[in-house]
Amino acid sequence: MTDEIDMAPSEDTQPARRGRRRRGGEKATPDLFPQKPFKQPRNIFPPLEAVSADELEAIHNASMRVLEEIGIDFLHEEARAMLKAAGADVKPGEDRVRMDRAMVEELVGKAPAEFTLHARNPAHDLQIGGNAISFASVASAPNAVDRDGGRRPGNQQDYRNFLKLSQFFNIIHGVMGYPVEPVDIHASVRHLDCIADFLRLTDKVYHIYSLGRERNLDGLELTRIGYGLSHEDFINTPCVATVINTSSPLRLDTPMLQGLIEMAKAGQVSIVTPFTLAGAMAPVTIAGALTLQNAEALAGIAFAQIVRPGAPVVYGGFTSNVDMRSGAPAFGTPEYMKAALVGGQLARRYHLPYRSSGVCAANTVDYQAALETTLSEWGAINGGANIIKHAAGWLEGGLSAGFEKFITDIDLLQKIAEYLTPLDVSEEALAVDAIREVGPAGHFFGTEHTQARYKDAFYAPIVSDWRNYETWAEAGSPTAYDRANMLYKKALEAYEQPPLDPAIDEEISAFVDRRKAEGGAPTDF
Amino acid sequence: MTDEIDMAPSEDTQPARRGRRRRGGEKATPDLFPQKPFKQPRNIFPPLEAVSADELEAIHNASMRVLEEIGIDFLHEEARAMLKAAGADVKPGEDRVRMDRAMVEELVGKAPAEFTLHARNPAHDLQIGGNAISFASVASAPNAVDRDGGRRPGNQQDYRNFLKLSQFFNIIHGVMGYPVEPVDIHASVRHLDCIADFLRLTDKVYHIYSLGRERNLDGLELTRIGYGLSHEDFINTPCVATVINTSSPLRLDTPMLQGLIEMAKAGQVSIVTPFTLAGAMAPVTIAGALTLQNAEALAGIAFAQIVRPGAPVVYGGFTSNVDMRSGAPAFGTPEYMKAALVGGQLARRYHLPYRSSGVCAANTVDYQAALETTLSEWGAINGGANIIKHAAGWLEGGLSAGFEKFITDIDLLQKIAEYLTPLDVSEEALAVDAIREVGPAGHFFGTEHTQARYKDAFYAPIVSDWRNYETWAEAGSPTAYDRANMLYKKALEAYEQPPLDPAIDEEISAFVDRRKAEGGAPTDF
Repeated sequence: MTDEIDMAPSEDTQPARRGRRRRGGEKATPDLFPQKPFKQPRNIFPPLEAVSADELEAIHNASMRVLEEIGIDFLHEEARAMLKAAGADVKPGEDRVRMDRAMVEELVGKAPAEFTLHARNPAHDLQIGGNAISFASVASAPNAVDRDGGRRPGNQQDYRNFLKLSQFFNIIHGVMGYPVEPVDIHASVRHLDCIADFLRLTDKVYHIYSLGRERNLDGLELTRIGYGLSHEDFINTPCVATVINTSSPLRLDTPMLQGLIEMAKAGQVSIVTPFTLAGAMAPVTIAGALTLQNAEALAGIAFAQIVRPGAPVVYGGFTSNVDMRSGAPAFGTPEYMKAALVGGQLARRYHLPYRSSGVCAANTVDYQAALETTLSEWGAINGGANIIKHAAGWLEGGLSAGFEKFITDIDLLQKIAEYLTPLDVSEEALAVDAIREVGPAGHFFGTEHTQARYKDAFYAPIVSDWRNYETWAEAGSPTAYDRANMLYKKALEAYEQPPLDPAIDEEISAFVDRRKAEGGAPTDF
Repeated sequence: MTDEIDMAPSEDTQPARRGRRRRGGEKATPDLFPQKPFKQPRNIFPPLEAVSADELEAIHNASMRVLEEIGIDFLHEEARAMLKAAGADVKPGEDRVRMDRAMVEELVGKAPAEFTLHARNPAHDLQIGGNAISFASVASAPNAVDRDGGRRPGNQQDYRNFLKLSQFFNIIHGVMGYPVEPVDIHASVRHLDCIADFLRLTDKVYHIYSLGRERNLDGLELTRIGYGLSHEDFINTPCVATVINTSSPLRLDTPMLQGLIEMAKAGQVSIVTPFTLAGAMAPVTIAGALTLQNAEALAGIAFAQIVRPGAPVVYGGFTSNVDMRSGAPAFGTPEYMKAALVGGQLARRYHLPYRSSGVCAANTVDYQAALETTLSEWGAINGGANIIKHAAGWLEGGLSAGFEKFITDIDLLQKIAEYLTPLDVSEEALAVDAIREVGPAGHFFGTEHTQARYKDAFYAPIVSDWRNYETWAEAGSPTAYDRANMLYKKALEAYEQPPLDPAIDEEISAFVDRRKAEGGAPTDF
């Protein structure tokens, strides 16, 4: 199906790139998955503000005091030298870097407010910023879980299956990290196999980890090869992202700084996301955690702008709270929601795209999982998030990626996208004539107005079971979890690998083989 | 505990009423339920608008055309006579009533934008309107369900247990209908027993059904007795509500009109809520369903203002869509969310309080239940709803009231209330000194800033299980449903009956006995 479409004459207005598919080519999906074509939702609502303009300035000022008076440890000599040269206060032999607010604001001001993140398939290019939203699958889980196989350490097969699901569902806009860590591949070469899989099993945007300079360089080069871009074009084409997590509080470690440097130098995207858990790595107050989040995010973003002014970056917010009884991270809490709103206010204050997440602390696909995940999304969407990471499949505070959860979350995301679709308020939609035709005590089932529209009138859910109780009970009282267990397998069956130029495929193999022969990347980071 | 508090000297500034408790007297609740005191959440966010001002006017105009050109059937001669006298177009021998927009807008303009709905316990009085929110329990379900007893037709014991849960949880602000219909009580006297239970088992606001004039009159009189009010005071004290459901499309039936008349005459509250299911009793387009909703709601509200200008009313929105494959009602859909937003815009256009709902179509307490319920609440809260009905316990599109669902929804509602609490952005909360004290690579667990705040820093969930996977698996992998099954029983154990003046208690019994001896109310409505 996709092949047929790809063989059709190209109507693509973008400059042809060798490795990139020419057209969207949305494939037909079975009736089980009545999904809409790939499209980024637009947030038609103004972002909500949890703090006033004055209060926002108070958070800004507090974080500026943190950067000026306390400073951030940059665990990388080259980075410190670059910061010093750019005007930061760096003392010899010390890791601490202090920046005054004028310097920070000037640097942050160089970052683009919006950019295109290019996919291998141009139909899957993403606008990052403005009111555009992207949903990305769960990332970085050490375990995979489904009902059949139980919970197990991540492995390549599960990894690949999550990539296939991410490719299959049009509501997933990108894969921002390994959905599950394939620990059955040696750490020295894991990134090579994983990125080759990104390129072969999907044609959506993806992520490379900042876990040592060599991994960034390998990921960048594989991406350039996979996209069929020249070195010159690559640097001007944002097409791969990394997440830079600060080591909260107040520290940017070596691999993260190497990542920031290499990504910025290559014109690629850094999503700077402090992991500021209120009560643990951040103050117990949400305002305090946001102060720390803001200081750390801006430190990373400012540094990227020193490396390469105009480097595409994203302001990441991940502030949540811990369970004060156990110290365990909690997600989808009311505090998380508020932090998501204020995170958006801060990102917009600096004219930066904003990243949030769809997360939960549930151990299984139950009411709790849906409640916490939906509340996370509520905060993210109301907060004006542009990239929503971990939006499908996240469980256990990120410790496992769930196949059933992936499917139930797809239903959530599709519903959100539909909620953000403008309402048709045309004369015909207002339906005064249909109301006149039906009159009191009638019904609208058989009217022409209904018949002409009913097939596409409403969102058709994939998980929600709307059968009546009796029919549902006769069918064995399946829960959403049961249905999702069936559906994820059907989706894997229906998955089709996107086309890839054989020459590029060979080039990818050659690169991977060469780097493996060289021993891959160091594992002592 | 409550008794002790009630014996303390009264600091109540409200005029004493014989049957009303003097003070709030929030009772201590076990550690399982770390709930906050009874308080209405305030919506700190501006309501979101799903349609533009012009589009809103288009819906308004379309509904005015429905009222002017098509009209509504009022199945009550007295009502038609009153409408005719007020200027409506009513032809002899016809049920149809047409009103021009000037008449409608003038009448609707007489309704109060805001009022106090008084509870038997003044600490449980509710503000209806503005940015105040009230959550009410599930209402009118024909079946009750829990895991132990399965699904069964409603009965008095389940009815009473739901009242006890509604009383126990401070996040429930009122009981707007029988949570479950106790069909083991004969229909002629059911309302007498049920209202007596409202008065005895709870001291929050409640609802009486409009199912025949006698039931309204009995309910009003029992309420007056229960509240210890004179007839004169009663009429000036809104303290009980009825829901008026239009028989969509375009019809107000006899009992509903009797209800509107008796409630308005008594100065009590009518929540006029058309049941406009897009694709069934309403046009398949959401804009068309809203046009019909608006016409019907305003027809009922305008009529109440003819009966008694200034009668307290609420604009009810319940527009959802059907499953076009089965015709079954769906809830918590994207279409539902949009309709909830526009319903709020319409209510505010007419300066009326707004009622929405927290509903789902799930058959059990699973991911679907949480997803659909939370999306309903998302629509209701973003839409600026003042009363959110069915907010705890609703399942199966209203066909059953679930005990476990009641508990899981309590967690949702408490989280929403916490989300709506303003963030503390004080100097201390910004925590620059704590950040300085901890410095890079430290943690905040043991700091004075954390120690002074950690106990109350975060919302403590009642259902969310934040144990790690291993501990949770060792405990038998309980789901939220399992936990809720335990919790609802604990809450019933912890329930304490609110005090009631023995003289009033006797008066209630005397009234109920007399009316039962008289045969109760007709059952041929």
